[in-house]
Amino acid sequence: MAHGFYLVYGLSLCLSLLCALFVVSWSLHWRGGFAWDGSPLQFNWHPVLMVSGLVIIYGNGAVVYRIPSSWKQRKLVCKLVHAGMMLVALLLSGLGLSAVFDFHTSISIPHLYSVHSWVGISTVLLFSFQWLLGLVGFLLPCSPRWFRRSLKPTHIWIGKIVLVLTLVACISGINEKLLLTLDGMSAAAYNTLPVEAVFVNCLGILIVALGTTILGILFVKKWQRPEDCPENTQLLVSESSP
Amino acid sequence: MAHGFYLVYGLSLCLSLLCALFVVSWSLHWRGGFAWDGSPLQFNWHPVLMVSGLVIIYGNGAVVYRIPSSWKQRKLVCKLVHAGMMLVALLLSGLGLSAVFDFHTSISIPHLYSVHSWVGISTVLLFSFQWLLGLVGFLLPCSPRWFRRSLKPTHIWIGKIVLVLTLVACISGINEKLLLTLDGMSAAAYNTLPVEAVFVNCLGILIVALGTTILGILFVKKWQRPEDCPENTQLLVSESSP
Repeated sequence: MAHGFYLVYGLSLCLSLLCALFVVSWSLHWRGGFAWDGSPLQFNWHPVLMVSGLVIIYGNGAVVYRIPSSWKQRKLVCKLVHAGMMLVALLLSGLGLSAVFDFHTSISIPHLYSVHSWVGISTVLLFSFQWLLGLVGFLLPCSPRWFRRSLKPTHIWIGKIVLVLTLVACISGINEKLLLTLDGMSAAAYNTLPVEAVFVNCLGILIVALGTTILGILFVKKWQRPEDCPENTQLLVSESSP
Repeated sequence: MAHGFYLVYGLSLCLSLLCALFVVSWSLHWRGGFAWDGSPLQFNWHPVLMVSGLVIIYGNGAVVYRIPSSWKQRKLVCKLVHAGMMLVALLLSGLGLSAVFDFHTSISIPHLYSVHSWVGISTVLLFSFQWLLGLVGFLLPCSPRWFRRSLKPTHIWIGKIVLVLTLVACISGINEKLLLTLDGMSAAAYNTLPVEAVFVNCLGILIVALGTTILGILFVKKWQRPEDCPENTQLLVSESSP
């Protein structure tokens, strides 16, 4: 059972690495690199931070509980790693939003006009709400047991929906950026498929592959952390027994 | 339990109706209506057929088994309704693809250049594969029981992934169409948010709302058709008992 999990989990780690490499290379190799000065170089942080935060770190944070070796840990350790990764994901996505808002302001482009931006901002708002609800429901010691129990399916459900919305926002955003950038250069219009377009389309496919792999891991029931998983005792005992 | 289901199912039906109204109105009111002559009027079939097929009919076909009143029917009836709706969805999406391919050919735009089209064509191919596998696995009488049993989780999993990919393809497609169409008219550039843009962005949000509602119905375990659901007997008996 664990072999099957680690195979798919290994695939998700490889895809994470590839997504990171592709999205950074796009900005560095074709879009002139990074700055924080209101120029298009500031915009370049937007895809990098959104993909790193909402796809890579969020996706890997979502499957922390599924890693069998983590079941030997106290559940609180898993919770803190999960919440910590999600906080990093949230901060990166906030920074990614501020990159694009600053850029729009500096060159007087209106904010939030496209359906990409409507879905994207809804995703980050839903994710923020989810993180706060998770903090209150699962980490504050005063949260009653009945509340945690009834919150859990909603938390898992919203978690998956945030990932689905992220995929929608990322792919529509990549499509928008390529249309706006490449179609400004007549020699390299998007529909002539210059090398940048092929490379970034592949980034889009890698993001979709990573997202669906993560959703796949979350879908398999037998890979869930067992409800009766001991707080550091039973597994250690069974490991030491013959 | 059934009340909760019918509330969410009713919401999905309302959203289905709204999506259909919005996508047809977009083409009729702002894009000049429909034709099948290689002109932009032929393109207008593309969003209508893809949204009708892959979102509305596919989404409603996916939850047929969840409708409690259907549990009184023989499972074969449910299967045939499910497979029939999926076949209609597949045919409409095929027709929707041919609308855009014909249009591209007639005005010499290359096919399949954007990440929207890469995700979209992958979605339809995956859906075709899923439909054929479903036909062989679940409808052909010669399919062995062990094969059906082991195929079922994969079928459910691919079914959800097709819906997720559909959302990605639809929103990136709507974004692309608005950018390409509105930005060609300087007075109504997408970023000035003309009425058409607001209306179609709302269509995008409705599509996402419908897709996530369908995924929500599929997520709730207690709404699944019971495994031991009788072939038309037990429920009828319990209904007639006091």
